[in-house]
Amino acid sequence: MIRIGIYGYGNLGRGIESEIKKNEDMELVAIFTRRDPSSIKTNSDVPVISSNQVNEWTDKIDVMILCGGSVRDLPVQAPELAKYFNIIDSFDTHIKIIEHFENVNDSAVDSSHTAIISVGWDPGMFSLNRLYAECILHEGKTYTFWGKGISQGHSNAIRRVAGVKDGRQYTIPVKDAIRRVRNGENPELSERDKHKRECFVVAEEGADLARIEKEIKEMPAYFNENETVVHFISEEELIRNHSELPHGGFVIRSGETGNGNKEIIEYSLKLDSNPEFSSSVLLTYARACYRLANEKNYGAKTVLDIPPKYLSSLTDEELRARFI
Amino acid sequence: MIRIGIYGYGNLGRGIESEIKKNEDMELVAIFTRRDPSSIKTNSDVPVISSNQVNEWTDKIDVMILCGGSVRDLPVQAPELAKYFNIIDSFDTHIKIIEHFENVNDSAVDSSHTAIISVGWDPGMFSLNRLYAECILHEGKTYTFWGKGISQGHSNAIRRVAGVKDGRQYTIPVKDAIRRVRNGENPELSERDKHKRECFVVAEEGADLARIEKEIKEMPAYFNENETVVHFISEEELIRNHSELPHGGFVIRSGETGNGNKEIIEYSLKLDSNPEFSSSVLLTYARACYRLANEKNYGAKTVLDIPPKYLSSLTDEELRARFI
Repeated sequence: MIRIGIYGYGNLGRGIESEIKKNEDMELVAIFTRRDPSSIKTNSDVPVISSNQVNEWTDKIDVMILCGGSVRDLPVQAPELAKYFNIIDSFDTHIKIIEHFENVNDSAVDSSHTAIISVGWDPGMFSLNRLYAECILHEGKTYTFWGKGISQGHSNAIRRVAGVKDGRQYTIPVKDAIRRVRNGENPELSERDKHKRECFVVAEEGADLARIEKEIKEMPAYFNENETVVHFISEEELIRNHSELPHGGFVIRSGETGNGNKEIIEYSLKLDSNPEFSSSVLLTYARACYRLANEKNYGAKTVLDIPPKYLSSLTDEELRARFI
Repeated sequence: MIRIGIYGYGNLGRGIESEIKKNEDMELVAIFTRRDPSSIKTNSDVPVISSNQVNEWTDKIDVMILCGGSVRDLPVQAPELAKYFNIIDSFDTHIKIIEHFENVNDSAVDSSHTAIISVGWDPGMFSLNRLYAECILHEGKTYTFWGKGISQGHSNAIRRVAGVKDGRQYTIPVKDAIRRVRNGENPELSERDKHKRECFVVAEEGADLARIEKEIKEMPAYFNENETVVHFISEEELIRNHSELPHGGFVIRSGETGNGNKEIIEYSLKLDSNPEFSSSVLLTYARACYRLANEKNYGAKTVLDIPPKYLSSLTDEELRARFI
């Protein structure tokens, strides 16, 4: 049994707790939190431990899954915890990947641990599919579309606008853009051409709705580049219709072979639960992490480094018979 | 430069010859044939060599790409050539994979060569996607649909019917079946539910068309399980409209997380040229084969064994910056 620890108990931590039950070769050992452990209500019977005491668990956990955020948590936690555990994280700040990889690698190599960073679906499965597709079709273009789904970052941005009580933002891929890419037209697409944004906003009583709508639509980096629609709804309706966390997206590589033959490779996800699916990916790579650590293959890795067979508990021969 | 040899000059061999030009780190060295070399007209200026003389080329070729068929050629050629070269093949007889792997592995290990078998899109990229998807979503079902595209096996079967001068068969996935799978309905689908077959047949003069149509539709293993449509057309029309080799298909994994959340992973290909795309995949794995051989990682492998980064000529750091 691979003994798993969860470090950070938010949406992703709860996803790990839910999905680990589907992996017969894994068991959840403990949940670590920076909050007061007695304040945490979990959905399992494992102990909830203060993060201050994590070092007492080094012999009891094979792989620690880090469930914190990429902005403040993971840059600190991943290099620190890699000193004591084999770890998996879902670091997704693209421009800091190189730095994060090196920080984690230094810790992991020094302490003889294995660390797989940036695991999930993007980065993660989408990274893999971009690599496979670009290696096969050298001449061509790769397009990534996200959605339809809830963007947590954009939802948080809405909530920061004065007069907003709560809000959710759906990223919606533009159908006509996808159609053109699938046709092999290789269009030049701006962010505006690719995605629309639909916002559901609960305003505080008496708030100036026109101002809120304007502030959202003009918000740089988040909304000003896209066609954005704002709906004001009641808190009750937000809870009833917009409490789930669906997401998904498309990686499409459009290339040419021979004399103008068009070849299209498409990978897509349609997810009812973004955190549960992401958790399933993290747990799959936890299996690979455990196996690499047992082989003393230490240091930081990404999904690009991991032989696909390491994700499965089947033998090489069983895998060949089943999948080839 | 990775020095590539082509062994067998049919559709696939010509595809390798065409697509290798897109790989800046590779060069085509020679084409080997069992036919009289002087009878072969190629599209490049490399020598065409009799397969009897292949052993004189052991020092001049880094990876030999075997372009023969799975029924008669590859079971003999792959173990034999793996004694002298690093090889790639596209062996696709599923029920004989284990045996073929072991035969090739014995040769390759004994002679310190690397051999990657069953490379292409199915088996190959579809195998990979089935593995990734099933590891992530343990609970669920995987569906593979093929088409729309020309099936060479079914086209050959048509041509064996008495009174048939020429013919092509398109495998067509049933749209409603794909729709149900994408909806997460997890239907039980028979072969008939999944694929239709459309045949374009040139009959010999005076042939009994009703008998030909009946024989095709009732042919066991090839057509009797499917809804099959037969069109009789002129030879001129066949050449004009059905000389290309398009193909494609879909691997869809439909699974659940949490309490009934549906998660759909889909990988699809839409190919104008099946042999050119397959060749692109083979060349990509030739790069990995070369690298593994340089690392003295010998023996037989499949796509499930190969770390994704081995497919690229970029450095690990370049890959992280570009794809993660």
